[in-house]
Amino acid sequence: MHRFFAFRKNGTIELFDEDKKHFKVLRIEKNELLELVIEDKIYEAKFTGQNFELLEEKTKPPDVKIYANVCIPIKLQTLETIIDYAVQGGVFEITPVFCKRSFQDSSKLLEKYQRLQKILKEAIKQSRPSFLPKLNYPISLKDITLQGYGIVFDSFEKPKNDLLKDNKYTLVFGPEGGLSKEEVEFLKALGFNTHSLGDNILREELAVFAGIFMIRCKF
Amino acid sequence: MHRFFAFRKNGTIELFDEDKKHFKVLRIEKNELLELVIEDKIYEAKFTGQNFELLEEKTKPPDVKIYANVCIPIKLQTLETIIDYAVQGGVFEITPVFCKRSFQDSSKLLEKYQRLQKILKEAIKQSRPSFLPKLNYPISLKDITLQGYGIVFDSFEKPKNDLLKDNKYTLVFGPEGGLSKEEVEFLKALGFNTHSLGDNILREELAVFAGIFMIRCKF
Repeated sequence: MHRFFAFRKNGTIELFDEDKKHFKVLRIEKNELLELVIEDKIYEAKFTGQNFELLEEKTKPPDVKIYANVCIPIKLQTLETIIDYAVQGGVFEITPVFCKRSFQDSSKLLEKYQRLQKILKEAIKQSRPSFLPKLNYPISLKDITLQGYGIVFDSFEKPKNDLLKDNKYTLVFGPEGGLSKEEVEFLKALGFNTHSLGDNILREELAVFAGIFMIRCKF
Repeated sequence: MHRFFAFRKNGTIELFDEDKKHFKVLRIEKNELLELVIEDKIYEAKFTGQNFELLEEKTKPPDVKIYANVCIPIKLQTLETIIDYAVQGGVFEITPVFCKRSFQDSSKLLEKYQRLQKILKEAIKQSRPSFLPKLNYPISLKDITLQGYGIVFDSFEKPKNDLLKDNKYTLVFGPEGGLSKEEVEFLKALGFNTHSLGDNILREELAVFAGIFMIRCKF
């Protein structure tokens, strides 16, 4: 079932401009069922030929809420892939993080924010999670907050497999080149645990997917 | 530690041409330690300024051997990403598979084989597994052999979480659009089980990584 982003206007439902194009390309027919995302809810809907009839709300909160703090990669374009993969993996919230070895130019990152929000929407349309993941504004490493069980994925530490079962996880992913030892110590002092993603060296985009997916696998 | 592919010639060790360039770019210095892949073994080695001194063999067979049968995607370029991701995930052998909804032109695929082998090498250099994964020639779905515990990742079936612990797994990943029902039935008759990768819809390259990584997570 295809998924589109829409909004309410004067009692009818309208698709956003980009989704209108997509809707035409797919040649959705009268009486065809589809999914509409309106504000923060997902609905099953029927195309009536003129408009849409909402049938049933289908939003289902995740069994486990995963908050991913992702250090901003030097190649800013990688952040687009990270957002896409994080949504496919089942993330709840993504927060880009400025750290010692990350991309540093916050004004350039903010210029790009509209594009990143678009990547998020596309990923939600493609992978069709039952809830709507959110992209936050960037923060500094020292402003990370810990909710539930905290994990720093870092290569300094030996693997540990005693992953706690919780209904909330806060994850921190280092940039290429890793977090500095001081940054890891800072996060450990906040209550974060360190875990490894195995022996193989993963590029940042796959590490983000792997960390999120590893937790989803436990549920 | 950087990793290079090399071969023995008249009692000395020589890097392959592509690796020579990479070696120069990295400005490896005298007495620097590195890893050399020679035939099917991985060594720690020292650059002596003129040649290499082999210090220790470091090949370590995987705890679990994962044989991934990957239906060939319609966009052949995606196969490159799949090979890269499969190596990062920890695959032991990758076999491209012709199925009903896969790319069909075997001569075009074979033309591309040298490039795919190069992708495999690059992935081995980057993710540095402790063993050397292998890329096989393509086969037909009906020629898939089952070693150890067999899993078809397919969206027709309900999720099952009773993943058996084994030391060998044979995985089958469907193409975009999925395997046909007949193909799934054929594999089930061979002894394969069906498993799901969760609720989200993953693109083929991420599905391959996710399936392999899910099994590695159990070890």
